[in-house]
Amino acid sequence: MPHYKLALLGFGNVGRALAELLLRKQDELKTRSDLTFSVVGIGTGRHGFAIRPSGLNLSEINAAFKSGQSLEAFSAFPVANTQDFIRKSGADVLFENTPVDYETGQPAIDHVKLALEHGMHVCTANKGTVVHAYHELKTLAAAKGRQFFHESTVMDGAPIFSLFRGALPGAQLLSFKAILNSTTNLILTRMESGESFDDAVRYAQQIGIAETDPSGDVDGWDAAIKIAALATVLMDKPLKPAEIDRTGIRAITPAMVLAAKAEGKRYKLVCSAERDGEIIRGKVAPALVPVSSPMYGLEGTTSIIQFTTDVLGELTLIESDPGPHTTAYGLLADFLNAVKSS
Amino acid sequence: MPHYKLALLGFGNVGRALAELLLRKQDELKTRSDLTFSVVGIGTGRHGFAIRPSGLNLSEINAAFKSGQSLEAFSAFPVANTQDFIRKSGADVLFENTPVDYETGQPAIDHVKLALEHGMHVCTANKGTVVHAYHELKTLAAAKGRQFFHESTVMDGAPIFSLFRGALPGAQLLSFKAILNSTTNLILTRMESGESFDDAVRYAQQIGIAETDPSGDVDGWDAAIKIAALATVLMDKPLKPAEIDRTGIRAITPAMVLAAKAEGKRYKLVCSAERDGEIIRGKVAPALVPVSSPMYGLEGTTSIIQFTTDVLGELTLIESDPGPHTTAYGLLADFLNAVKSS
Repeated sequence: MPHYKLALLGFGNVGRALAELLLRKQDELKTRSDLTFSVVGIGTGRHGFAIRPSGLNLSEINAAFKSGQSLEAFSAFPVANTQDFIRKSGADVLFENTPVDYETGQPAIDHVKLALEHGMHVCTANKGTVVHAYHELKTLAAAKGRQFFHESTVMDGAPIFSLFRGALPGAQLLSFKAILNSTTNLILTRMESGESFDDAVRYAQQIGIAETDPSGDVDGWDAAIKIAALATVLMDKPLKPAEIDRTGIRAITPAMVLAAKAEGKRYKLVCSAERDGEIIRGKVAPALVPVSSPMYGLEGTTSIIQFTTDVLGELTLIESDPGPHTTAYGLLADFLNAVKSS
Repeated sequence: MPHYKLALLGFGNVGRALAELLLRKQDELKTRSDLTFSVVGIGTGRHGFAIRPSGLNLSEINAAFKSGQSLEAFSAFPVANTQDFIRKSGADVLFENTPVDYETGQPAIDHVKLALEHGMHVCTANKGTVVHAYHELKTLAAAKGRQFFHESTVMDGAPIFSLFRGALPGAQLLSFKAILNSTTNLILTRMESGESFDDAVRYAQQIGIAETDPSGDVDGWDAAIKIAALATVLMDKPLKPAEIDRTGIRAITPAMVLAAKAEGKRYKLVCSAERDGEIIRGKVAPALVPVSSPMYGLEGTTSIIQFTTDVLGELTLIESDPGPHTTAYGLLADFLNAVKSS
């Protein structure tokens, strides 16, 4: 039975949810997937690094982390920095979950490269790596006989990328439509009860969904980044967020939202991309959605994507109520698919 | 570049749509999937059999079939019957698409066995094989180092089985809810405009969706067979259609449908299965669906399934407007996945 050494770089909400999921699934993966694993390294932003080739005790690490302790006490030897952590971890698989930089994708891209060069598979939830370096990282992974997987970068753990990688062979993606930003979905829903745009934004900030500067969401940047990631991977055309035709929801008024509702329609911030010869046209803009559309009933953080291919009609996927635990599952699925394929 | 010899047993709507799809995708599969194929055998119910080891000309076969000619003129040698066809075809992959027998699954099960014993992969759209012989056929396929795939048996070509086979590793399916029978969906929709049950059934018969004896649809048998197939494969428990708790739509009146509509709800014939310890409880019954559900807007032949797993929340798939061409794609996908895995 193969044994895999795992390293977790980044121990925020997603990294910790992954550690919990790994603990929960350990016995089952042995029985049902015929593999065992140990977590040999955990690298954090503010609590230091721990590497232990014989395997770290995740419960101890979790307890220490929660009480604010440094993880260094658990390390078999000193670790100077992130590069040192990747090089010395001895892992077969690196989970890269450091914070995203949307402008450059760094330093996550360099982490992925270093891990691939050291012969590791890399699984990441970091959109920046896909948007800024997808082809470079895929090429490097192929040269090293390893996988660079990124299921959790769009729609959390829902199987979007693996669907086209495995379940839809010989299919060409012609276009997609999607709702991928939950903050704007919440704001538009609040405005249906007559709340002003500003009050709805404040509410989203209060419950921790919107940032202090909400422009990333309400101006459609977050959506544009997700469109770019999907088009780059699934339509095989590198598309940058700046190339997306982008309209946010600032111009939508409560009066417009209420008038739409009276006609049995709802405003949604709809993402789309479409093949037009050799060009891919990406767009994010508010759109009126009728009750016959599965987009109509979408609430909360639930996301939806509708694929049009050359072999099926429209294929729709909806992921309800995602969170760090579903992002963690996307990473686990990437790990299992990566080691199965090699 | 590997070359695969294909045999098509059954040349009805699905078999002919598969032949068309194979013709259309031939060049693309060479370029993008690095494989070539030839159709070496076609076996029909009433137009005889044709085997040609060097490859049949599909355009000629189609023309002959449409003009009502026997296919025997195209055969390199005489073929006595279906068993003879399978044995002599020399194919690497058999597409089994003979008519379904819901009571026994025969003779399709015997066709699949014979093909597996002769070292072929088998891809089928025939639900009877899954409901009546899934474990036997999987075991035989494994012993022969071949695949028995059946993506098109439920929800046409939508990637349901391959999703759990590949894209959702390490996930356990706890329950599902689905709308899988389009005839009842159409009848219930017609009744929302005040039409009686009998008139709605007659309309469905006129447009060729309902059978002369509509009981297979309206009493929930078709749905029960699909639930049984899904539970048997995805929940790893053989479940027979007769074990499904089954209520059809005969007791639904136009008054009930209109009262529901007034409350913003719609009646749908909902299929479900749920794990309860070691038992799987399957059920089909009319249910009231609220506007917030993606089931609400479902029209026509569109089908939907909502999976609850131990690792994601609810994951919903909707296949819009399927037909023989999408069933054909499921068979093509099975072929590509089968040869990739071996």
